[in-house]
Amino acid sequence: MTTKIAPWIFTASCPSIIGTVDVVTRYMAESGHYVDEIHSFDDRESGRFFIRVEFLPKKEGFSASVFDQEFSARAKDFNMEWALTEPNHRPRVAIMVSKYDHCLNDLLYRFRTGQLNIDVTVIISNHPDLEELAKWHRIPYYHLPITAETKLEQEAQVKSLIEQYDTELVVLARYMQVLSPDMCEYLDGRAINIHHSLLPGFKGARPYHQAWEKGVKMVGATAHYVNNDLDEGPIISQGIQVVNHAHYVEDLVAKGQDIERVTLFNAVKCHIEKRVFLNGKRTVVFGG
Amino acid sequence: MTTKIAPWIFTASCPSIIGTVDVVTRYMAESGHYVDEIHSFDDRESGRFFIRVEFLPKKEGFSASVFDQEFSARAKDFNMEWALTEPNHRPRVAIMVSKYDHCLNDLLYRFRTGQLNIDVTVIISNHPDLEELAKWHRIPYYHLPITAETKLEQEAQVKSLIEQYDTELVVLARYMQVLSPDMCEYLDGRAINIHHSLLPGFKGARPYHQAWEKGVKMVGATAHYVNNDLDEGPIISQGIQVVNHAHYVEDLVAKGQDIERVTLFNAVKCHIEKRVFLNGKRTVVFGG
Amino acid sequence: MTTKIAPWIFTASCPSIIGTVDVVTRYMAESGHYVDEIHSFDDRESGRFFIRVEFLPKKEGFSASVFDQEFSARAKDFNMEWALTEPNHRPRVAIMVSKYDHCLNDLLYRFRTGQLNIDVTVIISNHPDLEELAKWHRIPYYHLPITAETKLEQEAQVKSLIEQYDTELVVLARYMQVLSPDMCEYLDGRAINIHHSLLPGFKGARPYHQAWEKGVKMVGATAHYVNNDLDEGPIISQGIQVVNHAHYVEDLVAKGQDIERVTLFNAVKCHIEKRVFLNGKRTVVFGG
Amino acid sequence: MTTKIAPWIFTASCPSIIGTVDVVTRYMAESGHYVDEIHSFDDRESGRFFIRVEFLPKKEGFSASVFDQEFSARAKDFNMEWALTEPNHRPRVAIMVSKYDHCLNDLLYRFRTGQLNIDVTVIISNHPDLEELAKWHRIPYYHLPITAETKLEQEAQVKSLIEQYDTELVVLARYMQVLSPDMCEYLDGRAINIHHSLLPGFKGARPYHQAWEKGVKMVGATAHYVNNDLDEGPIISQGIQVVNHAHYVEDLVAKGQDIERVTLFNAVKCHIEKRVFLNGKRTVVFGG
Repeated sequence: MTTKIAPWIFTASCPSIIGTVDVVTRYMAESGHYVDEIHSFDDRESGRFFIRVEFLPKKEGFSASVFDQEFSARAKDFNMEWALTEPNHRPRVAIMVSKYDHCLNDLLYRFRTGQLNIDVTVIISNHPDLEELAKWHRIPYYHLPITAETKLEQEAQVKSLIEQYDTELVVLARYMQVLSPDMCEYLDGRAINIHHSLLPGFKGARPYHQAWEKGVKMVGATAHYVNNDLDEGPIISQGIQVVNHAHYVEDLVAKGQDIERVTLFNAVKCHIEKRVFLNGKRTVVFGG
Repeated sequence: MTTKIAPWIFTASCPSIIGTVDVVTRYMAESGHYVDEIHSFDDRESGRFFIRVEFLPKKEGFSASVFDQEFSARAKDFNMEWALTEPNHRPRVAIMVSKYDHCLNDLLYRFRTGQLNIDVTVIISNHPDLEELAKWHRIPYYHLPITAETKLEQEAQVKSLIEQYDTELVVLARYMQVLSPDMCEYLDGRAINIHHSLLPGFKGARPYHQAWEKGVKMVGATAHYVNNDLDEGPIISQGIQVVNHAHYVEDLVAKGQDIERVTLFNAVKCHIEKRVFLNGKRTVVFGG
Repeated sequence: MTTKIAPWIFTASCPSIIGTVDVVTRYMAESGHYVDEIHSFDDRESGRFFIRVEFLPKKEGFSASVFDQEFSARAKDFNMEWALTEPNHRPRVAIMVSKYDHCLNDLLYRFRTGQLNIDVTVIISNHPDLEELAKWHRIPYYHLPITAETKLEQEAQVKSLIEQYDTELVVLARYMQVLSPDMCEYLDGRAINIHHSLLPGFKGARPYHQAWEKGVKMVGATAHYVNNDLDEGPIISQGIQVVNHAHYVEDLVAKGQDIERVTLFNAVKCHIEKRVFLNGKRTVVFGG
Repeated sequence: MTTKIAPWIFTASCPSIIGTVDVVTRYMAESGHYVDEIHSFDDRESGRFFIRVEFLPKKEGFSASVFDQEFSARAKDFNMEWALTEPNHRPRVAIMVSKYDHCLNDLLYRFRTGQLNIDVTVIISNHPDLEELAKWHRIPYYHLPITAETKLEQEAQVKSLIEQYDTELVVLARYMQVLSPDMCEYLDGRAINIHHSLLPGFKGARPYHQAWEKGVKMVGATAHYVNNDLDEGPIISQGIQVVNHAHYVEDLVAKGQDIERVTLFNAVKCHIEKRVFLNGKRTVVFGG
């Protein structure tokens, strides 16, 4: 069997009107690009259109800037937001953690084995505990402690690191601090958080304790974009794990970890493959 | 392969102290009963002990009242609540419904095919819609309309039917009325409700609408005992179904139905097989 | 929230060459049709292209035969097999069963409640057992007994019923007879069978017994198109159910039924919604 | 909430006769041990009885050898095989791998974080690739290359390492070599293998390729004890992952890894917690 050739990815969204698919696919065909896969969706509720195209450009002389110029001319009546992503684009990712390392360990494993096509450029933590893990992966680790008094100051340092490392995506891999509204806004749309419950159930602190108190028969995890509302950002992916009466809180914590890391991985993978679109408070996820 | 012989079931709970298992198993052995399966659980949080035993009595002359008498003498220091259930005990069940019939249809299917060892003796609804389905199964159907003004009166009628039909278990199979506190208390511990969300998420009305608004990637269902708190009774079983951005509310409703009916069935089955124990606001479910 | 308007469905497949998507979407746009959803897939292994489009035709004067004529002219260089399905197309379905009724009961429930947009026109069985269920749904029931000697004769009767009832799809809802090669060929591509294992595991007779012998921790079900190879037709959908050591064969049988019926339902739903494409011995299923 | 105190574990199996549970629980009670949890199972097919008890010994002076002596006297008529495992017993584990590191990485993560209460004492591979990972965990790594000619010799070296490191359990964490019959026998009952399919489907080489060819909609993994039959040892745990037509073999490989490692982890955890019993070609797994 052959190996899949990495395609270019075109993504766009705009208000739903006639011709939205056509303007894309016609340009592809007339330019000699080979369309490998299309997903599109018109949301009747929000009245928005979303499209993701994987394509292989014509053999020679493909230029993204020519694509830009030519497609802009055609798309100008559609009020379209669109983007082109080159094959094997490898976003620069900053990971923020506290003490739990299961998500970090998982992301680093997939990073070093190539399962996640990202470049983890920096790890930032409010605790020193996970430095050795970072070191072994040869990734700079910044320990930036935080208190109620120093929150804004610490966040300023975080921002400065995010910029210094030219970061495209921030992953909150069990970073156990509530971000300030300013920080949330700063990260809007480019930070993914993992919360250890099936949101909107069990928002806030100690969700496994809450879940245990309620005697639930399933615990879950939710990966979502960061926004201003605590644990209310648009959901990208969710996972669940069956539990029973014999599981104490510490068992829920342990069992939940496998779901958390896979759920976070799925969200990051979908995000970097440009499968996720914001749609108001919801998301569209193609082929996730 | 042989067919499983239906066993007697012994269930008990009491405060956790030493000798709780022993007092049960020793009596079984000394009486010549064959213990086929034991589940036990000591809950360190509530400090309660739970046990369920399936046993085949010695060949001749087994008498439940002798068991009662003899075991009571042994168990008297344990403050034990216990019960004996005869093989193939077939509880008399009243089903309450409104207009959605997917849960009712499923329960009746399993009733008529013997998958659920119950006797559905009466169906009570606040709407006339499902009478034909009841008729085909030759089960009396009572249409008791309800308004805000007539709620207590209607509930009195319901109670009187529950008693008239000598009911052991009431199943609320998508009965879309909030019960009065009095009715809740009346049904305490002997009524199972299905709620169409993964509780405690999306309590109350129109949970699929709520779920859609939040853009969740999974919808769920929860079967629980009825108690005073709306949608807060002890959870017996839960189920989930993966959904995505392309599913509108009506799709969630449709997809959720398969989970609702299987989740309700599981809860009813566990209940009638005496696998479920109340443990404060939580449940213990053995081998469910 | 609004209700989804039923769209026309366009489906096509052809060898993968440049312009396949474009020829479809361009025609849609130039004809003033509104494309609501597209799925496409190029299979690098088989070298085939598949596309499914949901569209709302321009307001007035849409004619399928004009579409045919116009699109044929454009598609003629693509060696494309394509089809147009009108909104709410309601295929005529024949169901074949033996004695187990769980799949039949489920399909009939979804038929009568409109969950499955089909017209169940006839039920054919080699046993008389399920006639009452058919009657209650007011569907003709034919009892056609079969023996090794009468197989071909019985199959001729089945064929004649399939034709008499102008059948578009045949569903083998636990029809426990091996079809003759001739019958398989007759049904090729328009009959869906449910097999009670996760194929290709446990092909043939008594798969739950086989599964029990092997001590598996999961049992499954597979819905597939009928073809010449016993239990080897292209797979449309699969489902699984967790089991454990305490489940005897009869428990696997009972637990498997829920998976069988949901798996068969999913396959039938995908089929009638034109989501399933044959791709050699495999299938493409869009948005299933 | 309190933390669970680690209990002693008592496990036993014997032919099913009356008094099997009683002999265990009576001894516990008469000796003043507190029984925290019991699971028992009588298999009607094999005629064997299995029991697992977690207990907290009476406060002072508990001695395993006294338990041995006293219980042996009581159990002598039951032909019982039994074992006592001390709290937090930490088995010495040897891991064998080839080039794929996802299972190894997962086991080492759980080992170093205490999720798996094992002591990984040695890693043995037929390839040099994973040495760095072993080094970082400060675990000796032996690279023992193998060819058809040197298989027996290499296996002799492996055996000698297993003995040198006083190994209780061997985990084949994607060790891609067929073991000789002699080696299989040597490892009988104390080696767990992960196979990347839902056995008995897709035995042998390249199961994901086989699965892709068949167009399955789910891939799976199976953890089982090693025995003489290739991929036919008693199954401990299984897991599955949904896939679709857009997944090529390399995608199945990637998606399967998450299932493989969780499935292997579950099996190892159940094994070291003494939850798994051999029952002919099947297993009994309590509370897994």
